[in-house]
Amino acid sequence: MAQQQIWYGGDYNPEQWPQAVWAEDVQLMQRAGVNMVTLAVFSWGLLEVADDQWDFGWLDRIMDQLHQGGIKVDLATATAAPPAWLVRAHPEILPVAADGTRLEFGSRQSYNPSSATYRAYATRLTRKLAERYGSHPALAAWHVGNEFGCHVARDYSAESAAAFRGWLERRYGTVEALNQAWGTAFWSQHYTAFDHVEPPRATPTFPNPTQLLDFDRFSSDALLECYLAEVAVLREVTPGVPITTNFMGFFKPVDYWRWAQEVDFVCDDAYPDPADPASPGLAAMMRDLMRSLGGGKPWILMEQAPSAVNWRERNAPKPAGQYRLWSLQAVARGADGVMQFQWRQSAAGAEKFHSGMVPHAGTETRVFREVEALGAELKSLAGLVGSLCEPSRVALVLDWDSWRALEQAAVPASLDYVAQLQRWHSAFWRRGLGVDFVPPEADLSAYDVVVAPAAHVLSQAARQNLAAVPGRGGQLVVAYQTGVLDPDLHVLLGGYLGAELREALGVWVEEFAPPALVAGQWVPELALDGLAAGPATDWAEVLHAVEAEVLATFRAPGALVDGQPAVTRRPAGPGAGAGGAWYVATAPAALDALAAAILEAAGIAAPLLPAGVEVARRGGRTFVLNHALEEQRVAVDGAAVVVPGRDAAII
Amino acid sequence: MAQQQIWYGGDYNPEQWPQAVWAEDVQLMQRAGVNMVTLAVFSWGLLEVADDQWDFGWLDRIMDQLHQGGIKVDLATATAAPPAWLVRAHPEILPVAADGTRLEFGSRQSYNPSSATYRAYATRLTRKLAERYGSHPALAAWHVGNEFGCHVARDYSAESAAAFRGWLERRYGTVEALNQAWGTAFWSQHYTAFDHVEPPRATPTFPNPTQLLDFDRFSSDALLECYLAEVAVLREVTPGVPITTNFMGFFKPVDYWRWAQEVDFVCDDAYPDPADPASPGLAAMMRDLMRSLGGGKPWILMEQAPSAVNWRERNAPKPAGQYRLWSLQAVARGADGVMQFQWRQSAAGAEKFHSGMVPHAGTETRVFREVEALGAELKSLAGLVGSLCEPSRVALVLDWDSWRALEQAAVPASLDYVAQLQRWHSAFWRRGLGVDFVPPEADLSAYDVVVAPAAHVLSQAARQNLAAVPGRGGQLVVAYQTGVLDPDLHVLLGGYLGAELREALGVWVEEFAPPALVAGQWVPELALDGLAAGPATDWAEVLHAVEAEVLATFRAPGALVDGQPAVTRRPAGPGAGAGGAWYVATAPAALDALAAAILEAAGIAAPLLPAGVEVARRGGRTFVLNHALEEQRVAVDGAAVVVPGRDAAII
Amino acid sequence: MAQQQIWYGGDYNPEQWPQAVWAEDVQLMQRAGVNMVTLAVFSWGLLEVADDQWDFGWLDRIMDQLHQGGIKVDLATATAAPPAWLVRAHPEILPVAADGTRLEFGSRQSYNPSSATYRAYATRLTRKLAERYGSHPALAAWHVGNEFGCHVARDYSAESAAAFRGWLERRYGTVEALNQAWGTAFWSQHYTAFDHVEPPRATPTFPNPTQLLDFDRFSSDALLECYLAEVAVLREVTPGVPITTNFMGFFKPVDYWRWAQEVDFVCDDAYPDPADPASPGLAAMMRDLMRSLGGGKPWILMEQAPSAVNWRERNAPKPAGQYRLWSLQAVARGADGVMQFQWRQSAAGAEKFHSGMVPHAGTETRVFREVEALGAELKSLAGLVGSLCEPSRVALVLDWDSWRALEQAAVPASLDYVAQLQRWHSAFWRRGLGVDFVPPEADLSAYDVVVAPAAHVLSQAARQNLAAVPGRGGQLVVAYQTGVLDPDLHVLLGGYLGAELREALGVWVEEFAPPALVAGQWVPELALDGLAAGPATDWAEVLHAVEAEVLATFRAPGALVDGQPAVTRRPAGPGAGAGGAWYVATAPAALDALAAAILEAAGIAAPLLPAGVEVARRGGRTFVLNHALEEQRVAVDGAAVVVPGRDAAII
Repeated sequence: MAQQQIWYGGDYNPEQWPQAVWAEDVQLMQRAGVNMVTLAVFSWGLLEVADDQWDFGWLDRIMDQLHQGGIKVDLATATAAPPAWLVRAHPEILPVAADGTRLEFGSRQSYNPSSATYRAYATRLTRKLAERYGSHPALAAWHVGNEFGCHVARDYSAESAAAFRGWLERRYGTVEALNQAWGTAFWSQHYTAFDHVEPPRATPTFPNPTQLLDFDRFSSDALLECYLAEVAVLREVTPGVPITTNFMGFFKPVDYWRWAQEVDFVCDDAYPDPADPASPGLAAMMRDLMRSLGGGKPWILMEQAPSAVNWRERNAPKPAGQYRLWSLQAVARGADGVMQFQWRQSAAGAEKFHSGMVPHAGTETRVFREVEALGAELKSLAGLVGSLCEPSRVALVLDWDSWRALEQAAVPASLDYVAQLQRWHSAFWRRGLGVDFVPPEADLSAYDVVVAPAAHVLSQAARQNLAAVPGRGGQLVVAYQTGVLDPDLHVLLGGYLGAELREALGVWVEEFAPPALVAGQWVPELALDGLAAGPATDWAEVLHAVEAEVLATFRAPGALVDGQPAVTRRPAGPGAGAGGAWYVATAPAALDALAAAILEAAGIAAPLLPAGVEVARRGGRTFVLNHALEEQRVAVDGAAVVVPGRDAAII
Repeated sequence: MAQQQIWYGGDYNPEQWPQAVWAEDVQLMQRAGVNMVTLAVFSWGLLEVADDQWDFGWLDRIMDQLHQGGIKVDLATATAAPPAWLVRAHPEILPVAADGTRLEFGSRQSYNPSSATYRAYATRLTRKLAERYGSHPALAAWHVGNEFGCHVARDYSAESAAAFRGWLERRYGTVEALNQAWGTAFWSQHYTAFDHVEPPRATPTFPNPTQLLDFDRFSSDALLECYLAEVAVLREVTPGVPITTNFMGFFKPVDYWRWAQEVDFVCDDAYPDPADPASPGLAAMMRDLMRSLGGGKPWILMEQAPSAVNWRERNAPKPAGQYRLWSLQAVARGADGVMQFQWRQSAAGAEKFHSGMVPHAGTETRVFREVEALGAELKSLAGLVGSLCEPSRVALVLDWDSWRALEQAAVPASLDYVAQLQRWHSAFWRRGLGVDFVPPEADLSAYDVVVAPAAHVLSQAARQNLAAVPGRGGQLVVAYQTGVLDPDLHVLLGGYLGAELREALGVWVEEFAPPALVAGQWVPELALDGLAAGPATDWAEVLHAVEAEVLATFRAPGALVDGQPAVTRRPAGPGAGAGGAWYVATAPAALDALAAAILEAAGIAAPLLPAGVEVARRGGRTFVLNHALEEQRVAVDGAAVVVPGRDAAII
Repeated sequence: MAQQQIWYGGDYNPEQWPQAVWAEDVQLMQRAGVNMVTLAVFSWGLLEVADDQWDFGWLDRIMDQLHQGGIKVDLATATAAPPAWLVRAHPEILPVAADGTRLEFGSRQSYNPSSATYRAYATRLTRKLAERYGSHPALAAWHVGNEFGCHVARDYSAESAAAFRGWLERRYGTVEALNQAWGTAFWSQHYTAFDHVEPPRATPTFPNPTQLLDFDRFSSDALLECYLAEVAVLREVTPGVPITTNFMGFFKPVDYWRWAQEVDFVCDDAYPDPADPASPGLAAMMRDLMRSLGGGKPWILMEQAPSAVNWRERNAPKPAGQYRLWSLQAVARGADGVMQFQWRQSAAGAEKFHSGMVPHAGTETRVFREVEALGAELKSLAGLVGSLCEPSRVALVLDWDSWRALEQAAVPASLDYVAQLQRWHSAFWRRGLGVDFVPPEADLSAYDVVVAPAAHVLSQAARQNLAAVPGRGGQLVVAYQTGVLDPDLHVLLGGYLGAELREALGVWVEEFAPPALVAGQWVPELALDGLAAGPATDWAEVLHAVEAEVLATFRAPGALVDGQPAVTRRPAGPGAGAGGAWYVATAPAALDALAAAILEAAGIAAPLLPAGVEVARRGGRTFVLNHALEEQRVAVDGAAVVVPGRDAAII
């Protein structure tokens, strides 16, 4: 990407419109400042009209027209939805659900990712497109598939079962190793042959947890194999063209740490609810994840809605200004592109009520006016292209195995993993701090604060990695349900956390004591005394502070945890500067007070911003985004900045 | 029907009782004023005891006994529940659900409506009954099947799939026409052969909306074919005997506008919840629908419960007086018959806890006393038989395609179509106005007020039809989500509503802005200023009044619609009298104020009645029904009428 | 069981641990006072490692080690979870759900109870174990299977269908008798051959109620056949060894009255929610059931959790003291054993978060300290072994057919059967009264008070049995929804209750009038005047007091029952002492007042205890258990006893 401008545009589906509309489209794109479109995402059926019969004429024409209009193309491999003739000729490619239901053609993603037939047809199509358009002057990048795993993240067919067995043989070598990892001595689940293993289909009661996790891991890998099969073709035929696929924010089925290694640049599809006041913070967290997945490099916001989506029970439009504000947020947090789904709102099909840059009502509309205005503003920000965000001093541990394991059934309490992350991200975001996400075994040396909430599954290497933070002067913050299991989901015995973290934190956990919901009430009702005094929710446990100071205790009359430690801190040894290891055994309502203490210990000065205000720094600019309705006054770099409601200042 | 008396009676299932009870039944029927029973609805298994082996003896006997007792028979064709021997010999007639589950024998309606085998057996049985009882003196009418589609409205078997393809070929002619209508350019759904099309079974995500709608249309037609196959036999064998089947009020799967053309008189099964204070208004709406389906002609209330039903979570009995009141309501709104399910409450089976005219506890019971009293009262109203209701000046547009499309997934907001209708019907009902339901292309010339709420799908002819109302002096009231789609579910671009309605109303809609439910709160909170001032719910949108006066505006701080038009009116041209075109962009809590303004413009004087009071006029009589607990005083035709609680006055 | 000590211990799964842990286990068991463990419940896969290939070495070793440690063994037949190799060789043993889904291997209980293959393999394994360990000195009892029916209570496969037909032929003899019992004249369900009958799989609407009930009965019997097949082997090979299996408290699928006849001693697995304030009362009811199932003989609490379970949404630990308190409760109410699931908390598998006697954190923990302390206390209570509880003067009728029928769909109102029982049990438990559960045809002569709430299904013998209570001086209390149906689920016509109970009670029921829930409100709102004055919920009906005094009437303006009898009492004839027959037509909030009146009539002096206090008497000791947080003062046998919060006094 020898990129000059911030990408601006969206998915473009000209095949849904008569060719008479195409010329108007290009004109309107120019008017709106569009410089990039994603083409052909769902065009397989109109490109390969029957087995090995091709119709590229229409795509040739629109590629040329776009080129003539100065608009570049992020060209899809068009493999996201196999056509009807292929499904009818090879019904074995249809996905199968856990209860055995075969999922029919008629929506999209009607394929089993492990299907050899699907992969053969998909790579043939990819090769055709690469050969035909690899040197087209409009081509800017390859867009492989689309939102991998969005609807069919796991397949339970016989073909997938065989692939799963192969994956297990490669992982474990012997069936005895599998037995050991899965703990099959429990419930008489011992296997004597890989051939006896099946996916975790519908079972009489809770299936084996490690089988479940391995099937999640396998399913993510099976999708990745699909992606890589197409990538291999593209690398061979068009070696110079960058390749990507669109991620979907916090998406549990697919391990983006692994996937991010295989894309030339990271892309995200982001659809927070315009009506939810918590959305700006959630969106900021998504942006930070995408930047982190790319190792800090610029990324592309590949899809967002200009206004409403169509898949919630009730779909609110974006109020005036929000489209701009959330777009600038992406740029401020590292995006080099602001793309939309989609250019022209569809007139038919299942997404016709999803907003487009050109609405049903045409161009004399609020939405199109905002689209035009943003195009102009992004052009003025071209100088940011390629620049980096201000380095983050705070890291948040994110781990797909922990996510999957924490949210399994038959656990101490049903917890929402992303909510655990968001609670902490939000505490820093409200102070204008960027946060990097990191996998548990990442190099953490750049960070002054490392927070691990519900990092449920930790390898020994990860435990050592985290435990080393205080010793080099950093603040390690471990929140509940971290380090409970090893990667085979075996419990870390002897007080949880593993020996390394128990030592680093100076604590051990005797017993989990999550409050229960009885008739809608938390039992016991939890409160904290000391640091972060006030109510607490979600979790409690019997914690022993062996070598740590107790900063807060529980108040919960009659409960096990009453008067027991809730927040502790072990200062690192005398030679370690201001390093410290914090343990947090609950979710305090007054998290800001706790965050303030942690940041103070880390020497980070970052006062709370007014409610709804976001500050982010990139490429020498400071973005002040006011998500609130009311005007806000903010002190930025010593100067007072006044920002009207739902508006932004770029300094 | 050379009918002399209001039909009174109910379903009669003598086969559930020893023959000793039959004589008592006839005696009690006479005592209760019963003059009609519906016989043999679920008797297939006892009439055709094995393939082509018949036992008509018991039916002969009860037909004769009823005749001797002076009681007529609405004789069922007995095809509603195929017997066990037939299902075991031909398991292919069993219905199949969308996920592939085959539905087993053991309840009722265990057949796929498209099954050729089922139809062959059903029509053979029909012929046998027609030949045997066609000239029996007790026979008053044929009752074909029963509640078509009640449990199995759609079937997803291979046989239905083939029938669906045939239906599509007849509808579209070419697969390219189908592609155009279904918008298959979206999501790579293009078909190259009708053979590739299947019903909308379980899919990875939202299926094609037009495929869904066509399958709804096909499924209604498949049921109608079943019905018509039996009708054809009856018309051939017993040409003079009237034919009907029982409708089920507002029943989404079956398009009663189409079906009503094929019955000799309209029948309804109506079971509003006795415990719900909203039921009288809902019941009134059902009565108005039945009268409208028959083009104003008298209809038959074919089933209601004498007291409780048995299929809700909790089944309240009818409080004293309610059975009479709701029965009189049916007569007042056009019914020539008041029939019950069922005569004698069953002692066994899945409906044994559904009330009967003869309760479990026998005849010394409140229920039987009310049954007797109503029989006598209906006899006194025999003069009404054949008479018409006072002509309605208000019409409410009802359209099955709109209903189905509005309630699909992936729409702007999940709305309840019947609730949209009821909101408006209730506004008129509370003023003692009869309302006719009309399909969107109906002749509207008889109406002063035509209301179209959520008429989501409108053909061009329908749009022209509605748009013509103001020009001839009528009030056209269009409420939100009307005219959004054409009959193929393609969006009417350029401001929704279609050019005809945009012109007539003088408005266009830029953008939908439905409030969302976030943590149980409406966001944004909506209120109206101006006409119908006060809270509003359910919907909002950005409306432009081009040639219309703005009667109310939204108040919703921070939202798109704040200060924007919510209710508008365009007066028709100077030559058009008092005609007007109203547009309503939300659901005002103060709908009565808006209705008052509309009626005033239409020159209809109809003040609000006291709460719970209903007034209806038919055949020269005025029915004043007091659904409230307390005595109410009402001015009727200039005179004050006092009606005790849960009582009626017929003037 | 020549039992000397109260059994103390738990499930022991040494196969989940390296053998190095086994020696520590035995030492810790001795330290904790453990004298009994349940072994090999889920060991099939590790004992029969392939078809007819056996590995008993590890079980030999641990049996010997336990014996050397002085610990006895309740040895499982290991048949609860067939191993993978068996399922793969014979997939036909896998269970099938009502919709046809085959339930896969990978959790536990992956077998169809009617599978001949499963039974053949299971009995062969049983024989192997019996032959090998029948004379092992550690063997105390056989533990057959495990929690029969816990996950797979009903199977809908073809093999089960055939077994069901066989069961029906044995029950009914002729298909015409089946037709009569099932009421197949309804909905054309008549059968002409047993071969046409299938299990009640997924159907279009409500299936036949008697078919459902018969399938419930058959399914309970099919599980019992599995159990008895193993018992037959054990009786043959080891005639002197007692045999049991673990029940699961109030478990609807399995009729424990029938099963209790087939165990040498009754065992229970009991897991009330530690966080629910209602749990102590529920647990007391479970204890009373177990004692009653064994005819008053001591029983074994076979499984409880030392602290938290792992299968609720949120799993609260037991607060300090609760483990002891609930254990003592079991002893006080007749248990001769207090066993836990499980000895050592698992490190892997689906139950790793279920607490164990040896927690993840080891022995320096609250849980292990409480485990040790209880072991010592139980040793001091050895004198109670074999003793009986103070005889109960109150009996509560419990009937599985009533339970199943009451909770079917398509009934007057959805009611919770166990809640009906608990309401009454609690009223007596709060006064320190033991309650015996009895089947409806039991000998009732020992009881002064017999309560029958929602005894929905009663045979004539049962009705006569209950009706005889007042005549011999007892108080019969019949609460609503009793005696509505006969054992074929045919209505008892003529006023419900059956002639015998109508006569005994002096009442008949005209009509059910359950309040409905409309928008979350009870409609009508019910209250009582007279005895038990105050609010009432759940039920109402039109009751006629023919020969009974009316003790309370309904207040429910506008409803059928307003002013009508709600509680009645018919005193028995002059020669019958203080006998009386009470009828209760609703659920009074003030049930204590009603219970007081009943007990007074019965001559039972039992004042209300302070909230949370339980008193139970056994073997000359009086247990005073304080489940409340606060200290309570109680008068026991004339003396004041002060018990701290969550503590117990044994006098």
